Amino acid sequence: MEDQIFLVDCGEGTQMQMAKYKIRRSKINYIFISHLHGDHYFGLVGLLTSMGLLGRTQELHIFAPPNLEDIIGLQLKVADIQLSYPLYFHPLTEEGVIVREMKFEISCFPVYHRIECWGFRFREVRPLRRVNPEKARQHEIPSSFFDRLKWGESYLRKDGVLVDNQLVTEPATKPRSYAYTADTLFDQRVADHVKGVDLLYHETTYLKDLEEQAVKRFHSTTVQAATIASIAGVQRLIIGHFSSKYEKLLAFEQEARDIFPNTDLAIEGVTYKI
Amino acid sequence: MEDQIFLVDCGEGTQMQMAKYKIRRSKINYIFISHLHGDHYFGLVGLLTSMGLLGRTQELHIFAPPNLEDIIGLQLKVADIQLSYPLYFHPLTEEGVIVREMKFEISCFPVYHRIECWGFRFREVRPLRRVNPEKARQHEIPSSFFDRLKWGESYLRKDGVLVDNQLVTEPATKPRSYAYTADTLFDQRVADHVKGVDLLYHETTYLKDLEEQAVKRFHSTTVQAATIASIAGVQRLIIGHFSSKYEKLLAFEQEARDIFPNTDLAIEGVTYKI
Repeated sequence: MEDQIFLVDCGEGTQMQMAKYKIRRSKINYIFISHLHGDHYFGLVGLLTSMGLLGRTQELHIFAPPNLEDIIGLQLKVADIQLSYPLYFHPLTEEGVIVREMKFEISCFPVYHRIECWGFRFREVRPLRRVNPEKARQHEIPSSFFDRLKWGESYLRKDGVLVDNQLVTEPATKPRSYAYTADTLFDQRVADHVKGVDLLYHETTYLKDLEEQAVKRFHSTTVQAATIASIAGVQRLIIGHFSSKYEKLLAFEQEARDIFPNTDLAIEGVTYKI
Repeated sequence: MEDQIFLVDCGEGTQMQMAKYKIRRSKINYIFISHLHGDHYFGLVGLLTSMGLLGRTQELHIFAPPNLEDIIGLQLKVADIQLSYPLYFHPLTEEGVIVREMKFEISCFPVYHRIECWGFRFREVRPLRRVNPEKARQHEIPSSFFDRLKWGESYLRKDGVLVDNQLVTEPATKPRSYAYTADTLFDQRVADHVKGVDLLYHETTYLKDLEEQAVKRFHSTTVQAATIASIAGVQRLIIGHFSSKYEKLLAFEQEARDIFPNTDLAIEGVTYKI
């Protein structure tokens, strides 16, 4: 969002993947960990120590189940590492707003997995205005200023003329929002927490024929994820966390689209815009 | 060694690299961790839990500084994971033999890093005999039996004739040995611990001009590693752990070979036979 990157969960090798896809670690100020199964956090301590080795100085905030602080603390202690930057742990204990900034707000909510597990909802507080590039050019506003126009700023030209923001932008329709539901059983309460978001990520570990296995292992099927999206009235659904036993993913897309047509697969390296 | 794999240190992403190079996890029964800096063990907990998910049942033995048991124990506990196999931690506390098997023996010895750090020495107890393939064929011994000939067994033919091992093999010259010295300052005591091994791995984080930095950071230079190899009278030296600030590695090879000619670089994915 703007020049912020929010990192949600951090499995082993995340820092290598970030290097591969040229994602800049220095833009991460908030990290959210849904639960303490290894595929969701074993890469965190490596990322944190690498940030230190690279000389990071700005604050980093981690929102996670309480035990994570002990695990990371112990690992830093035995390695005799003093991080070069202030690291703040925020234990997740109850649902509600966990970050409130001028431009965005982030909340957590419980989901239903084998161990304590949290989902996260991100929403813009102030919607972005839409720039009319033609009008902006007529008023001699350089494109490097367009991002600030989106946030409602007016432009002061070198000749002293103030170009009012409303002359070159249109109001945005509504603030954008995104929800990530981590690993979870099918539970209608999840739909309440993600109601009306623009983009919903929901796990679908199994195809619909393995619903029984999904229940047993505290995961969801295609049909269940699509049903949550449908009940919650979201704009778009991204599904992921496919069991490694499936070689092809086409059936996931088909089964989910039967119930919620605007569904796509979460594919490594792909960017999904909101 | 034979059908055993010894894993020495386990940085983040080791299990992915093992998959890439088709190294079978099931052949690992012993893991050795030199010290608790992340690049030497952050991949361990992921490997251990993956082995569990794959249904491993045979014992696994880990030799490591004592604190590792707390770290892994805490991570398994918060994830509510019961491994499917018996896992034994053996804390390293003093130098000496840590594994004594019929065919091999493994020892640990202290090296000199910023935190407690151990090197490991592997040696065959009973040297392999050399098979004379021509003579073996004359006695109608199938090549599938050659491995057992190396270990001194005689061959009982289907016609009831026992072919004495000494008829078709020659004695081995000496048992093979390997030493891994982990991360360490230049210290002549290391040479005492690795005296005469067939293959020595020694770190060379820096080129020779950065000796001062090497001392400050408890690492070694090319010249220092080659000097240890030379004093210890080893057969061959492999150097690695190059600082990431160097883009090309040719100078490492050249500087080390000036002092110890039989030196090679440790390159990802390459097998070095002893």
